[in-house]
Amino acid sequence: MRSVVARFSSSSPSIGRHSSIPRLLSRFLSLHRLAPMAAPSEESLRKALADKQAAVDSRGNAVRALKAAKASKPEIDAAIEALNSLKLEKSSIEQQLQAIVRGGDGSSLSREEFRQAVVNTLERRLFYIPSFKIYRGVAGLYDYGPPGCAVKANVLSFWRQHFVLEENMLEVDCPCVTPEIVLKASGHVDKFTDLMVKDEKTGTCYRADHLLKDFCNEKLQKDLTLSAEKAAEFKHVLATLDDLSADELGAKIKEYGIVAPDTKNPLSDPYPFNLMFQTSIGPSGLLRGFMRPETAQGIFVNFKDLYYYNGNRLPFAAAQIGQAFRNEISPRQGLLRVREFTLAEIEHFVDPEDKSHPKFQEVADLEFLMFPREQQMSGQSATKMCLGEAVSKGTVNNETLGYFIGRVYLFLTHLGIDKERLRFRQHLANEMAHYAADCWDAEIECSYGWIECVGIADRSAYDLRAHTEKSGVALVAAEKFTQPREVEKLVITPNKKELGQAFSRSQKNVVEALEAMTEEEAMKMKAALESKGADEFLVCTLGETVTIKASMVKISKEKKKEHQRVFTPSVIEPSFGIGRIIYCLYEHSFYRRGKNKEEQLNVFRFPPLVAPIKCTVFPLIQKPEYEAVAQRISKLLTAAGVSHIIDMSGNTIGKRYARTDELGVPFAITADSESDVTIRERDSKDQVRISVDEVALVVKGLTDGQRTWADIWAAYPHHSSASADDE
Amino acid sequence: MRSVVARFSSSSPSIGRHSSIPRLLSRFLSLHRLAPMAAPSEESLRKALADKQAAVDSRGNAVRALKAAKASKPEIDAAIEALNSLKLEKSSIEQQLQAIVRGGDGSSLSREEFRQAVVNTLERRLFYIPSFKIYRGVAGLYDYGPPGCAVKANVLSFWRQHFVLEENMLEVDCPCVTPEIVLKASGHVDKFTDLMVKDEKTGTCYRADHLLKDFCNEKLQKDLTLSAEKAAEFKHVLATLDDLSADELGAKIKEYGIVAPDTKNPLSDPYPFNLMFQTSIGPSGLLRGFMRPETAQGIFVNFKDLYYYNGNRLPFAAAQIGQAFRNEISPRQGLLRVREFTLAEIEHFVDPEDKSHPKFQEVADLEFLMFPREQQMSGQSATKMCLGEAVSKGTVNNETLGYFIGRVYLFLTHLGIDKERLRFRQHLANEMAHYAADCWDAEIECSYGWIECVGIADRSAYDLRAHTEKSGVALVAAEKFTQPREVEKLVITPNKKELGQAFSRSQKNVVEALEAMTEEEAMKMKAALESKGADEFLVCTLGETVTIKASMVKISKEKKKEHQRVFTPSVIEPSFGIGRIIYCLYEHSFYRRGKNKEEQLNVFRFPPLVAPIKCTVFPLIQKPEYEAVAQRISKLLTAAGVSHIIDMSGNTIGKRYARTDELGVPFAITADSESDVTIRERDSKDQVRISVDEVALVVKGLTDGQRTWADIWAAYPHHSSASADDE
Repeated sequence: MRSVVARFSSSSPSIGRHSSIPRLLSRFLSLHRLAPMAAPSEESLRKALADKQAAVDSRGNAVRALKAAKASKPEIDAAIEALNSLKLEKSSIEQQLQAIVRGGDGSSLSREEFRQAVVNTLERRLFYIPSFKIYRGVAGLYDYGPPGCAVKANVLSFWRQHFVLEENMLEVDCPCVTPEIVLKASGHVDKFTDLMVKDEKTGTCYRADHLLKDFCNEKLQKDLTLSAEKAAEFKHVLATLDDLSADELGAKIKEYGIVAPDTKNPLSDPYPFNLMFQTSIGPSGLLRGFMRPETAQGIFVNFKDLYYYNGNRLPFAAAQIGQAFRNEISPRQGLLRVREFTLAEIEHFVDPEDKSHPKFQEVADLEFLMFPREQQMSGQSATKMCLGEAVSKGTVNNETLGYFIGRVYLFLTHLGIDKERLRFRQHLANEMAHYAADCWDAEIECSYGWIECVGIADRSAYDLRAHTEKSGVALVAAEKFTQPREVEKLVITPNKKELGQAFSRSQKNVVEALEAMTEEEAMKMKAALESKGADEFLVCTLGETVTIKASMVKISKEKKKEHQRVFTPSVIEPSFGIGRIIYCLYEHSFYRRGKNKEEQLNVFRFPPLVAPIKCTVFPLIQKPEYEAVAQRISKLLTAAGVSHIIDMSGNTIGKRYARTDELGVPFAITADSESDVTIRERDSKDQVRISVDEVALVVKGLTDGQRTWADIWAAYPHHSSASADDE
Repeated sequence: MRSVVARFSSSSPSIGRHSSIPRLLSRFLSLHRLAPMAAPSEESLRKALADKQAAVDSRGNAVRALKAAKASKPEIDAAIEALNSLKLEKSSIEQQLQAIVRGGDGSSLSREEFRQAVVNTLERRLFYIPSFKIYRGVAGLYDYGPPGCAVKANVLSFWRQHFVLEENMLEVDCPCVTPEIVLKASGHVDKFTDLMVKDEKTGTCYRADHLLKDFCNEKLQKDLTLSAEKAAEFKHVLATLDDLSADELGAKIKEYGIVAPDTKNPLSDPYPFNLMFQTSIGPSGLLRGFMRPETAQGIFVNFKDLYYYNGNRLPFAAAQIGQAFRNEISPRQGLLRVREFTLAEIEHFVDPEDKSHPKFQEVADLEFLMFPREQQMSGQSATKMCLGEAVSKGTVNNETLGYFIGRVYLFLTHLGIDKERLRFRQHLANEMAHYAADCWDAEIECSYGWIECVGIADRSAYDLRAHTEKSGVALVAAEKFTQPREVEKLVITPNKKELGQAFSRSQKNVVEALEAMTEEEAMKMKAALESKGADEFLVCTLGETVTIKASMVKISKEKKKEHQRVFTPSVIEPSFGIGRIIYCLYEHSFYRRGKNKEEQLNVFRFPPLVAPIKCTVFPLIQKPEYEAVAQRISKLLTAAGVSHIIDMSGNTIGKRYARTDELGVPFAITADSESDVTIRERDSKDQVRISVDEVALVVKGLTDGQRTWADIWAAYPHHSSASADDE
């Protein structure tokens, strides 16, 4: 297990996006976060290195001086030996420092190698393909090839089962093409931007924060002579990258003399670039549209219908799986930052006054890595916590949020995500929108660092209110009282005629100001009018004080019976970046094995649930009887709905096993007689013998999760030809 | 069953699209086709009507003349009676004519009513929702609400099972955002257009062919005084609408004096409007992109990788499910013509020299309505044909195409499409691309007429060749010979130096022309050069004849050994418009029943495979014990993976049944004791009693297709409370 380190605010790429469009989705963007090291150690090393360098310099001068003074050989030799020993010490400090700045444990190279091995296997076996490859591709667009497509379908089907079916969620399917007004209301048109700079000569575009981040990282990692002070400054910049305005970012770029990486040309000032793909709906060119940047808005605008569909009852959840689009300025990091991706989003609507969850007890005992705000701020690590305790102590804001955190944990670990490399990190105050009650990200560690794969946020009533305001359609819920409740209500009735006579053209402003009084203000005026017959009144929109007479307004408190409470529901939103989850799953499932270092074979240890193909069928050798058996088994598997492939090639069984291990196929059936066959399990390489008639149903049971390999191992005779794998 | 009528070419909306981008997909567009009536009958009626009108007129004049002449009352009365009888005859002819021009059987009104009933139910129960409704929507964009979304997921999951899994197809998943070059190669950038006219004053856009079509239809249907000649002319226009050029269409619009329907303003000349949604990829604004108009191109550009993945063997099929986009000028007809839709496409690659299919025998005995080209041309109807015969007689071009026609038939009928309202219509010569070998559309009849829902085309090598040419990457397959074959090859070697001296600047043209000679031309030249030492040679690109001397070119035939045959595979493409299939399924599944005409209840008779929810669970009355049983059953159903809802409302059982019938839920469980419950089947309304522990597995078996209701009816005690439905 890798050590889990504390971190400050992020080097997330979404300047301005968090504060202004604080949808969790935008959190998917931040990938690499700087892991601030145990600071004294790095600082002391930088100091020690500087000291040692000074010592080396001075000892070098001393040696030169001795030589110049023609000192005795033993004297010079002793001085040189001292110099060399100093150099050795310096180099040792350098190595320690290097290890720290490059990833904590000096394993950065092997992490790169590991990623290369995974990615090579994925590309070679067509788990994914750079899109439009024959036309040299487009950055940030990838195809899922056959096994990748099957993995994705399996993940989505499990998502439906685990969330939609389990909770009776209302699934919807909305278009990607979205008219401007919807995204204007949500804030995306104005705020869904990244800051961009242009090469002033060639016009090439770069993300401003990327350039600054790269510059700081490069300095920190490569320039070991950096003073501790300067190092601290660069770290501070990285930690606050998200909070920098366009001007501040521009100033830093100027200060550090950062130029275009490819040409060394000067750069423009940073300016916002909207990340939505824009288009035009219909032939007139007048209706601006965008490709949706998330699926959630389609749910929000349908709230009224969905609430009705649910019998006008809260809570309920709606869900949507679909494509989302983001016109990244310069996509990096392969499958983790792409321009088109599949999201699976849930919007769970609750009464803001009751966020309990009836099924919370089902997840309350779960224990996993949690990383609350306080621990991050105080430089501690994520620790295992019990979810029930986290909610009862108030670390997690409410039961419903906690319930979804637990369900997400179960979802990801069922898929095969390693529990030890999965943590739930709470958003820091500056990451979260002002209206949000609480946000947690499920982060998965892979070779790129800790990656946000699922965001789970309590977004309060923000989204429904925004669309209510823009559309004029009230997106609200009502709680019917069993007994009508009596409430006292303030009633302000301006006498428009008198006010008109008194204030002529300013009448409208005065009326509005009167109607807008708070209860306290109104009651004070009522008292004044009753005692003095008039009151002085500041009309803000006019910027002047007017005299209101008793005849001009009637203020009273009236008792009313209310039969219901009308309110805007809160929404709790778990939002899943499917592509990111799948990529992390690839890394967590990948391993190599073999007789020796040279002959390593690649394996994906996908659980049957995820495996793109559940089973392979081989005739042991190219013999018509065996081939017929293989064909028969294939038919039975198809009838049972088990996805499989037949490999009739003349390759050795060992080669054929290796080929399917690389696709993560959990079971292989080898036809070596007309009555019985063997099934081999991928990771143990164990084999059992089983009758031809039975084999399809056994594999179906294994892949459905009805039976485990241990059950099969206990029930059927073992096959001892252990050498098959080595053929 | 509705009568199946012959028809000529279509009033399809895709002028120019068929001939220039003849992808089957574009066929999805053509909806309403004119059904040319048994022509003599309509023609004779029009003639009879005109004659009768003349007789009425002349008899009317006679009556007036008698009155003017103050003829005797009996005389006048007799004349009036004769006039009235003539008028009656005329009106009878009018009615017959009206019945014919409005849809053959005079049922057009009830068809409208039927559609309204279906659509009202679909909208009320949120099968679909006009997208962004609170913002007054966008034409041609629809959301699938919860039941619609579930139906769609079920249809797609069955599609995967029936096609992808059954045939071991290679499924891929490519992005919607597509760079221009790909769609330039496919022809969409230049040719994927509809002809548009603009209101010259307001700028409102219309589809030119729609206006012309509406004008002709209106005339034919409403103007009963139309002469038979004029009627024939309008019908001809409708039949040839697809073939009209922009100029011809413009001329017709002028000739008929067609104006903007809303304002009566004059219209512009027709001009092409590209139907793709355009966007820009990346921040520079320099890389033009489009939202894909079909998913097929993503497969074609990956051919090389997929062929390799398949072990460099043919045939194999790739498949893709995904969104496609079409910026319609003015979408009409609800869910049938939309701007964003889900396609499921298969590209089956075969050796053009061998289009047999090993599994064809499995579908050869199927019999269903087929509508070959000849039958359409000769005005006959579609007839039931045996698929095996259709292929052996050459009506269907080849076995592979035939195999897919059969598989599509099985797919659609399994979903619940009515066999009698499903036909396979062959494309007419003028509908098909010049390169296409054969095309058939699966058309489903609904209230809008016969709708193309699946296109099945043999597109030959067109697509792969287009991308090979544009990308420079050879998208080819190779057949390895077991023995190398000796072939004689023509070799033409121009002597560029001599040609340069002789023709200086024209040298390039001459060299190219020489190299482009056919074998026959080359051998003739070789003979001439050998006998006369020179030959006259026409260089087309220069437009002149030059003299070629023996020294200027070497022509020979050389024997070569070839180890393989390299060729561009043919592609057979079944392409499914999922939304259209689902809409037709709604119409075919809908019926009403009830005690009397006033109390009609809506039912969708979805097969369990398709039903959005498989089962409902009701406590008979609001009683804690029954509610506990219902909750327990719900848990068991969730564990068994059966999608269901609980209805705890205090409504009568009858009302609750009616509510779920309207969603097409096939089974309802009513908890009326703590040990046993009843299951009710939707269409028969029959009920059986079954134990609480067993009920979830029984429903699972029913919805998986492992058991039928008849099995259950035979195995369990019947429940006699037949009145439940009427409560």
